[in-house]
Amino acid sequence: MVKKDDGSRVRDALRVGGELPDPGSAPVGPGKKAKALDRLGGAGERLSALQEALYAEGVGGGRRSVLLVLQGMDTSGKGGTVSHVLGLVNPMGVRYAGFKKPTPAEQRHHYLWRIRKQLPAPGQIGVFDRSHYEDILVPRVSGLLTGPERRRRYAELNAFEEELAEAGTTVVKVFLHISPEEQLKRLKARLVTPEKRWKYNPGDLDARSHWAAYQDAYADIFKRTSTERAPWYAVPADHKWYRNWAVAELLIETLAELAPRFPEPDYDADAELAKLKGVGVPS
Amino acid sequence: MVKKDDGSRVRDALRVGGELPDPGSAPVGPGKKAKALDRLGGAGERLSALQEALYAEGVGGGRRSVLLVLQGMDTSGKGGTVSHVLGLVNPMGVRYAGFKKPTPAEQRHHYLWRIRKQLPAPGQIGVFDRSHYEDILVPRVSGLLTGPERRRRYAELNAFEEELAEAGTTVVKVFLHISPEEQLKRLKARLVTPEKRWKYNPGDLDARSHWAAYQDAYADIFKRTSTERAPWYAVPADHKWYRNWAVAELLIETLAELAPRFPEPDYDADAELAKLKGVGVPS
Repeated sequence: MVKKDDGSRVRDALRVGGELPDPGSAPVGPGKKAKALDRLGGAGERLSALQEALYAEGVGGGRRSVLLVLQGMDTSGKGGTVSHVLGLVNPMGVRYAGFKKPTPAEQRHHYLWRIRKQLPAPGQIGVFDRSHYEDILVPRVSGLLTGPERRRRYAELNAFEEELAEAGTTVVKVFLHISPEEQLKRLKARLVTPEKRWKYNPGDLDARSHWAAYQDAYADIFKRTSTERAPWYAVPADHKWYRNWAVAELLIETLAELAPRFPEPDYDADAELAKLKGVGVPS
Repeated sequence: MVKKDDGSRVRDALRVGGELPDPGSAPVGPGKKAKALDRLGGAGERLSALQEALYAEGVGGGRRSVLLVLQGMDTSGKGGTVSHVLGLVNPMGVRYAGFKKPTPAEQRHHYLWRIRKQLPAPGQIGVFDRSHYEDILVPRVSGLLTGPERRRRYAELNAFEEELAEAGTTVVKVFLHISPEEQLKRLKARLVTPEKRWKYNPGDLDARSHWAAYQDAYADIFKRTSTERAPWYAVPADHKWYRNWAVAELLIETLAELAPRFPEPDYDADAELAKLKGVGVPS
């Protein structure tokens, strides 16, 4: 398939490769809040239209779907992205799944078991708030995986995503990249605001204390699992307005390339219209 | 629990009982489009705030949830309601399920089997686009259920919903009431607009030709299954702006009565704040 030159501007700019962009930067697109919010409005309309076409294609028997994978440190804005970006489209076509620490029941299964149960159906946009990548991230930082075990798991993750691609699911992997300074501010805000306290978890401080190890683990993940069919994007996320705009655009470019099509009716529209005209109003 | 006098105005007005309101009427609330759209904006904010509190309550161990059941003739606006009303809140807290004609695999199970798999988790707002009521509606209109079989199924549906209530799920059952004249217009619009043709199904005309039988079946359903804990509401749905406003208000009143609460933290917020202040920025 020929890639349109102008259809991957944001993907090209944010695709991981070498150094990550500064968490407070705007490597592509609007650099100011007002402009970003304004553009997000327009993005909402395009995203909605593309999502509706994908959904319709699914109803018509198409098998394609999109899976947005959101990863990032605590407070990086995974939930906010779901609310502000996926909130722009029809909830009928969105399937959200959050993955917390595996339950004892989940731990008795292969780590992909719970993941597979939440995959998007044809026509849907699936969203993973944390994902199968937690299953290499956390054990790695905890020192529980040897080198050979890590390599085996990377190969397994790539094979899994290859399988998804074959099944018609386009995977868009996004790392929400915040700075430790911004995280500190957000953690404080969660503690001092009573309606935000439920979002805070004392374990967040443990993870924070291993900041460098997590960044290393992510760098390794990007190196090993950013593939042609399922690439990683690093979205600077210190500014919520930039993060929302960027994720919306990544989805739009991905969907636009898929170019979902409203299905051809499997009935004769003119004949149905004629029948309808002959139909009275039932009493 | 004492019901607040002003907290069930819309529910009281739209609760089924006797004659259904005219599909083009506005028995309660705004009678004009501009006012309804304006009020829907405000409703969105209230609904969002209540939904967030319910979600937070669920994260904190609460078990309560809400299940919106949408029923109505073809084109009555079930999908539009999902888009315009549930689209107002965070997709993280919404679980949508559409029920079409049961598949052969589903038909081998009890009809509640596929329904149970889609129930909302604690903290969620579930939405059923068609529901377990199709399983009495369609066989009844097709003449496949004898009187005793119908009565047994009503008892079964009531027992199922009683079980949901015991489990913490508040069921809100909404009949989107359109007129056959309005349906005719909407069916025509689906046929003449290429991007809407996928929504049309030749079977819609068969169902339309049994209009009176469906209305009778619904009347019977309301009589048999509108219970104190899981009442039916009839929402006039010829005007989309009225339908959206009314369903939003029904959800708001229901959630406001539940009065979901942000959970108390299971940690010492002051101690955590002190720890955070001592924490530097990780290198």
